Amino acid sequence: MGVTDFFDPDGIAVIGASKTPGKLGNDAMTNIRSYDGDVYPVNPGSTGSVYGYEFVDSVGETDADLALCCVPSPVVPEVLEECGEAGVGAAVIFAGGFGEVDEAGREREAEVAAIAEEYDVTVLGPNTAGYCIPHLDLYGSFVPEIRDVETGGVALVAQSGGIGVTGAFQLDREEYGVSAMFGLGNRANVDFADLVPVLDDDPHTDAIAVHVEGTDDVDDAIAAFRDAETPVVMLKAGSEELGDFVGSHTGAPIQRRETYEDALAGEGVVFVDTVTELVDAARAIASAPTPDGRNVGLVTAQAGPGILVADELRERGASFPALAEETDERVTELLQGITYTENPVDTGRPLPEFGEVIDAVARDDAVDAVVVYEIYERSLGYPVEELEALADDLDKPICFTVAGPRRFEEERLEMEAAGIPTFQAPERGASAVGALLELADE
Amino acid sequence: MGVTDFFDPDGIAVIGASKTPGKLGNDAMTNIRSYDGDVYPVNPGSTGSVYGYEFVDSVGETDADLALCCVPSPVVPEVLEECGEAGVGAAVIFAGGFGEVDEAGREREAEVAAIAEEYDVTVLGPNTAGYCIPHLDLYGSFVPEIRDVETGGVALVAQSGGIGVTGAFQLDREEYGVSAMFGLGNRANVDFADLVPVLDDDPHTDAIAVHVEGTDDVDDAIAAFRDAETPVVMLKAGSEELGDFVGSHTGAPIQRRETYEDALAGEGVVFVDTVTELVDAARAIASAPTPDGRNVGLVTAQAGPGILVADELRERGASFPALAEETDERVTELLQGITYTENPVDTGRPLPEFGEVIDAVARDDAVDAVVVYEIYERSLGYPVEELEALADDLDKPICFTVAGPRRFEEERLEMEAAGIPTFQAPERGASAVGALLELADE
Repeated sequence: MGVTDFFDPDGIAVIGASKTPGKLGNDAMTNIRSYDGDVYPVNPGSTGSVYGYEFVDSVGETDADLALCCVPSPVVPEVLEECGEAGVGAAVIFAGGFGEVDEAGREREAEVAAIAEEYDVTVLGPNTAGYCIPHLDLYGSFVPEIRDVETGGVALVAQSGGIGVTGAFQLDREEYGVSAMFGLGNRANVDFADLVPVLDDDPHTDAIAVHVEGTDDVDDAIAAFRDAETPVVMLKAGSEELGDFVGSHTGAPIQRRETYEDALAGEGVVFVDTVTELVDAARAIASAPTPDGRNVGLVTAQAGPGILVADELRERGASFPALAEETDERVTELLQGITYTENPVDTGRPLPEFGEVIDAVARDDAVDAVVVYEIYERSLGYPVEELEALADDLDKPICFTVAGPRRFEEERLEMEAAGIPTFQAPERGASAVGALLELADE
Repeated sequence: MGVTDFFDPDGIAVIGASKTPGKLGNDAMTNIRSYDGDVYPVNPGSTGSVYGYEFVDSVGETDADLALCCVPSPVVPEVLEECGEAGVGAAVIFAGGFGEVDEAGREREAEVAAIAEEYDVTVLGPNTAGYCIPHLDLYGSFVPEIRDVETGGVALVAQSGGIGVTGAFQLDREEYGVSAMFGLGNRANVDFADLVPVLDDDPHTDAIAVHVEGTDDVDDAIAAFRDAETPVVMLKAGSEELGDFVGSHTGAPIQRRETYEDALAGEGVVFVDTVTELVDAARAIASAPTPDGRNVGLVTAQAGPGILVADELRERGASFPALAEETDERVTELLQGITYTENPVDTGRPLPEFGEVIDAVARDDAVDAVVVYEIYERSLGYPVEELEALADDLDKPICFTVAGPRRFEEERLEMEAAGIPTFQAPERGASAVGALLELADE
């Protein structure tokens, strides 16, 4: 028993399954259909089948070892006990109405925890949107269309299921995916300290993005973040000023961001301020090599946005080293001296030589990380071939901030496929590269 | 003569027009085709026609009063003189290679300014991507596909043409548009002080988004921003640390953001930090009413993202007032007491009653601005009808932060059409609403 059960279930019971579209027990059934194994809709009040699966009256009649509990909170303790008696090893409890609400809810949550301990059931939630592992076609969530989310190198572990879902969909809308998404909710017995080590060992996970409000097991959580060899990006949410509202959410104790920052300084954990920064930093880290240092070679086809990117990078600790004489000569020759050939390099507009300029800067030994900005022009496109060759040859990150009409999408995705993270606004590229630079120090 | 000439040209000459795709003089021709008036491709080295327009040898042979100069910098003074002699009132000079480069460039720029003064030609640039006014089908720019950008209520005035183009395309990619986009470049004789008053009077412009690096006419610029009745959102770029790189761009003097902030405090100018914040704040201001105060009613279907939004709003000066007893009763009845019925209101998940909850909160007199967060669920959708009714009935901003699968797009655009600004990430909604709240104080 343990959180690994969520990764490798041998039969799944959906307790409170329903035929009625829009009901939570129907949405969960819709999502679980892609699972390649036995699915048992459990509902004593239903007969026949839903999506081709025959209803059963009780979890005891199934061979499931994972249960998705789609029942309201008052019924949860009873259902969890039935799960325990039926030998179910892991359960997801979606319902709210526990420790986050009132004293009665806290008692009910303690009851759930006691049952989970008695029967050794690993419980995700309560009060969670669930989880998904796209590369296993496993979508243990009631959120419709979460099964649209595809596979990527970022694992999202969110204290709030809503943030997990928000982040996963945000990645999906820009054609990225996740290795896993877990919403912890009230953490009856699955907390950061349980899940992060498993994701750290997961070969599909190249970066772990976490959303933390606060946890009673803060020392264990911090140890798990610190011990992870996989880089961790953290969004610490919930200021003390919002005390009541935060407490009413996942029953989380209010913890200051500094508690985490101080304990994790220099430990390979990058702190960010927004959901967009969380997913951007995590996917940059997941797809690009870690730089050896903070020396950035910036090549921009337009000076104005280049200034914004350079400003933001400098604030995040980047240096712009002088380029080698050889690089400078090559760039000057390519640009015929008409623009700014020192680092940052400004080509004035996208030129046919733009890819060669990037090549020259990227191959300079003084450069630890390459950042490119270019407004897409159809007649020139993006220098995809040159960048693919660089990504093959060099063990340093090459990040590309795109701008322009929608038409750039195809070439953007070609760059992504080559391991070149792309970003759709100047500050997004700068912030994600800033996260990569922070890892250079570790 | 004056910048109004850019809005109402009577014939346009494209000097340096070309038949060769990928050439600047060809791209400019491609963009100008939608102009409903006479277009004259000027090139003594070309014969025949381009896109159906007959080449002429010289601008003197045309009746144009606007010239798009697609020639390299050494030829610009001569070409501008020909324009002046031909009675052209306004010109766009795309070429770089002037004050931003070296002493020779500075001399050439002074020559351009002198010719412009002698012949009374209003010059946009040099060193600019140009401008566009979509509602006039007027795209005076060499940037391919700038003509994809549609009409909206935001005017973008960027010191860097690259930022203007980046912002316009960023708006376009999310289905917004601009009332106008101007890249100032080196500001030979068109500066913020010339353009902002014209846009302030423009009935198509409901918010002015400006990107400022620095200008010699700082007092005039500040006066123009201050005197504008149309709200101004400002991105001040270019830190002193990047001095050389910034100077090499538009030849701009380096000015601190504080110079502008101090002079414009309390004058209806909102300062932002990124391009995304610039366009988000401007479109929120352009489409929503100005709130009377900073009291926000926040309704969220998911607590975790709601906490992020509330945290960010509070940092930007929002208050979350207690709701009236009547509102509280209505919300409690709708939610049956299962979630957080104080403000912020958390419904736990999207419910069929979600629209009614928003209605109750929005109609509370204590609330100056309404902010909604909801992860889209197909079976429920977004409460578009309820929101449309609220937007009709109430003179307060209603802003909606969307999340979820791509499927929400249709309903997102319905909300936009009703005057409800939407945002695709928690921090984007919070930041734009923060900008609206700043205007409440003016």
